[in-house]
Amino acid sequence: MSHLQALNSYFELNREEHLNELKQFLRIPSVSALSDHKTDMLTAAEWLAASLKKAGLENVSIDETKGHPVVYADWLHAEGKPTILVYGHYDVQPVDPLNLWESEPFNPQVRDNKLFARGASDDKGQVYMHVKAIEALFKTEGSLPVNVKFCIEGEEEIGSPNLPEYVLANTEKLAADIIVISDTGMQGPGKPAVCYGLRGLAGVQIQVKGAKSDLHSGLYGGGVQNAIHALVEVLNSFRDAEGTIQVEGFYDNVLPVTEEERAAYVALEFDEEALKRELGVEELFGEKGYTHLERTWVRPTLEVNGVFGGFSGEGIKTVLPADAGAKITCRLVPNQDPDEIVEKLKAHIEKHKPVGVSVEVTEFDKGKPFITPFDHPAIQAAGRSYEKVYNVPTSYVRGGGSIPIVAAFDEILGLPVVLMGFGLASENFHAPNEHFHLENFDQGLRVIGDYYYEIAKFAPQDLKK
Amino acid sequence: MSHLQALNSYFELNREEHLNELKQFLRIPSVSALSDHKTDMLTAAEWLAASLKKAGLENVSIDETKGHPVVYADWLHAEGKPTILVYGHYDVQPVDPLNLWESEPFNPQVRDNKLFARGASDDKGQVYMHVKAIEALFKTEGSLPVNVKFCIEGEEEIGSPNLPEYVLANTEKLAADIIVISDTGMQGPGKPAVCYGLRGLAGVQIQVKGAKSDLHSGLYGGGVQNAIHALVEVLNSFRDAEGTIQVEGFYDNVLPVTEEERAAYVALEFDEEALKRELGVEELFGEKGYTHLERTWVRPTLEVNGVFGGFSGEGIKTVLPADAGAKITCRLVPNQDPDEIVEKLKAHIEKHKPVGVSVEVTEFDKGKPFITPFDHPAIQAAGRSYEKVYNVPTSYVRGGGSIPIVAAFDEILGLPVVLMGFGLASENFHAPNEHFHLENFDQGLRVIGDYYYEIAKFAPQDLKK
Repeated sequence: MSHLQALNSYFELNREEHLNELKQFLRIPSVSALSDHKTDMLTAAEWLAASLKKAGLENVSIDETKGHPVVYADWLHAEGKPTILVYGHYDVQPVDPLNLWESEPFNPQVRDNKLFARGASDDKGQVYMHVKAIEALFKTEGSLPVNVKFCIEGEEEIGSPNLPEYVLANTEKLAADIIVISDTGMQGPGKPAVCYGLRGLAGVQIQVKGAKSDLHSGLYGGGVQNAIHALVEVLNSFRDAEGTIQVEGFYDNVLPVTEEERAAYVALEFDEEALKRELGVEELFGEKGYTHLERTWVRPTLEVNGVFGGFSGEGIKTVLPADAGAKITCRLVPNQDPDEIVEKLKAHIEKHKPVGVSVEVTEFDKGKPFITPFDHPAIQAAGRSYEKVYNVPTSYVRGGGSIPIVAAFDEILGLPVVLMGFGLASENFHAPNEHFHLENFDQGLRVIGDYYYEIAKFAPQDLKK
Repeated sequence: MSHLQALNSYFELNREEHLNELKQFLRIPSVSALSDHKTDMLTAAEWLAASLKKAGLENVSIDETKGHPVVYADWLHAEGKPTILVYGHYDVQPVDPLNLWESEPFNPQVRDNKLFARGASDDKGQVYMHVKAIEALFKTEGSLPVNVKFCIEGEEEIGSPNLPEYVLANTEKLAADIIVISDTGMQGPGKPAVCYGLRGLAGVQIQVKGAKSDLHSGLYGGGVQNAIHALVEVLNSFRDAEGTIQVEGFYDNVLPVTEEERAAYVALEFDEEALKRELGVEELFGEKGYTHLERTWVRPTLEVNGVFGGFSGEGIKTVLPADAGAKITCRLVPNQDPDEIVEKLKAHIEKHKPVGVSVEVTEFDKGKPFITPFDHPAIQAAGRSYEKVYNVPTSYVRGGGSIPIVAAFDEILGLPVVLMGFGLASENFHAPNEHFHLENFDQGLRVIGDYYYEIAKFAPQDLKK
């Protein structure tokens, strides 16, 4: 029996148990952004550590950082074989607006062969697949064909503020030949993809302050600057009506998309009409002269993620608000530098500051954009593993999202990164009703298991960047 | 002993008891805008009814409406004398942001001879003064020199949606010669003012809807319209950077300010520098070519009262929001028509609707602007009563706020309205730390008591408009 046949039988036999275990993991509301979930973060780390130990991994530890801890584990008995470092995250996004969830975000439900829960796809479900793939190899083969290390953090959704320091302090412990991450999406149902580039991230919070307290709009309206109007003026200055960003020098270092890339993306036959239907919008919207894939893969963005000020309750309150704020993040592409972009944002805000208010700008954590050659052997090996299980050609794509730590790994450990994801774009990551298609859970377990054998075919030196 | 001397003694003797009673009234959180305060609204109405009965008024009733009830009371035994209808409101504004209050909004505290509580000045404190002035006249003189009716509503802060219907259905019951309202401000500490004009009100809520749910800003950012950006674009189109409203036809029917009025306002020697210091702003802001008093008294406004969308919690959430909204109100001046202004707002929003979103507009309740000749005998009588107590000349002014029902009273009952207020502009109506200067509570009780004698000097027909 081939290793893939053995894995097939094992995963079929244990499917219900695996799903039940994953639901336990998803029940822990490990929202890293909100300080009142601090205990839940530790509970999730402990759950994961126990699960890694149960799988057969060694040296399992919950490593403290200045923020939420990192869960580490390894198995290093495949002498002379490459070492794979698996990175992922056990933290999840906040869940509001809660009223739009069809079932509770932390009460996992399977409907229509999809698992609904916050983190089902991003990224607890995919982290859990790596744990179970290892466990399956131990159970079916007795050992692993390669060495493996796990480094699963709890701060990815807040920009991994403490992981670079952790990696720097543990370069020996984390030394490996490649890094594998499952936190990206496939091209579509039944269409696997290996991702060779990601966007970076930079952002700021803008806080506008007018009078020393809220004022009565009758007594003062028309005579004192309204903090919301001032904020709106600043926010509106960031983009023109066609979506082109107006921050001076914003596009300066953007690598132009090459004709080869453009052609490769056209070959993917992305269906913009289907996307419109799926999202429920009459028109897509973005920079003129670019396709949707280009807008979301190779072009940078500036999006307001939240805006707040004045009265938002039921009914009417005729207040002239003293305070208003907004959260803004930019997705960056090679070779934009996050620090430089934040400086440009600050200069823009300073230049557009309306009269009668003060504006305070605070920075969010940053992440560099990332790109790796798509002909690297570890990338191509991932493509082969997908093809064996899915029986279709693998696409080699770039992603619009950011995994800020990828660039840090790249910089600190100098390793090639393989992004082999099993999510689908329609799965509402970061939004209400996040879910995970269980056919990709099932097939992904097999792909990951096979990938260890694909990597075992190489000597460590073959995998050098 | 003159009636004013008798009132003086009575109010001095009973000051502590009166203040304690007022604090009871202020402890009831009668927030009309929030549906979970419905019971509190009834409690406040009952408290007020009991207080009117105790004062010596008759026919006290709590009259149901489609919303919060109206409290009615009268005393009609001064044959041949004019009848004064006292209007006020027992509802208060919401209290958020709660964290900015130095003491709890519904736990009244006296500090530095100021009474801090939501409603202390707007309008429970001033309504209560009318009740106690009547009580004092009964106690000191045994009867009233004029006939009096009270009509105290519970929906002023939400635009008096049900009072016009109540007034229409009760024109006999509410018939009077003049209406007296204490819900406006004085010119400054020690500077009494009778108000002869008010701004009207019209407003809308704008709800922008993009994709069918919030999206991941990495996967979709740059390719799908962001509801906040779209909202910001609409909001920013309402005004230019100098504060001039850009809605087509908005200023069409505005009565220009006359040279006489401009001169009268200049004579008031309004201190713009002092206002800046008081509000903590470096610059006042408003329509070019107008003074602060003109901007807030005779010019219309458009203010965003609240804005909301996306993530506003702690930290960062890289979401591309599907929904965003704003609450907008305009203060209107003679002869702007609220219905017409709402139509113009709707047309403007429709014209400026960004691509990729839908925009829904809902109307708030409206109020017409109001103006009355400042040489009317009931206005001049109020000025004399102020002068007797404050020993300085009374200013005749217009107000920037709206009491929507004033225009309705004017229209339905056809009566002159006298606005004799005791608030100060610095008292944070509608904002955290609302308070009432107790020297104006003390002096105001005497002014109101005296006013009944001033009005008693006229025959009812002298008071016709």
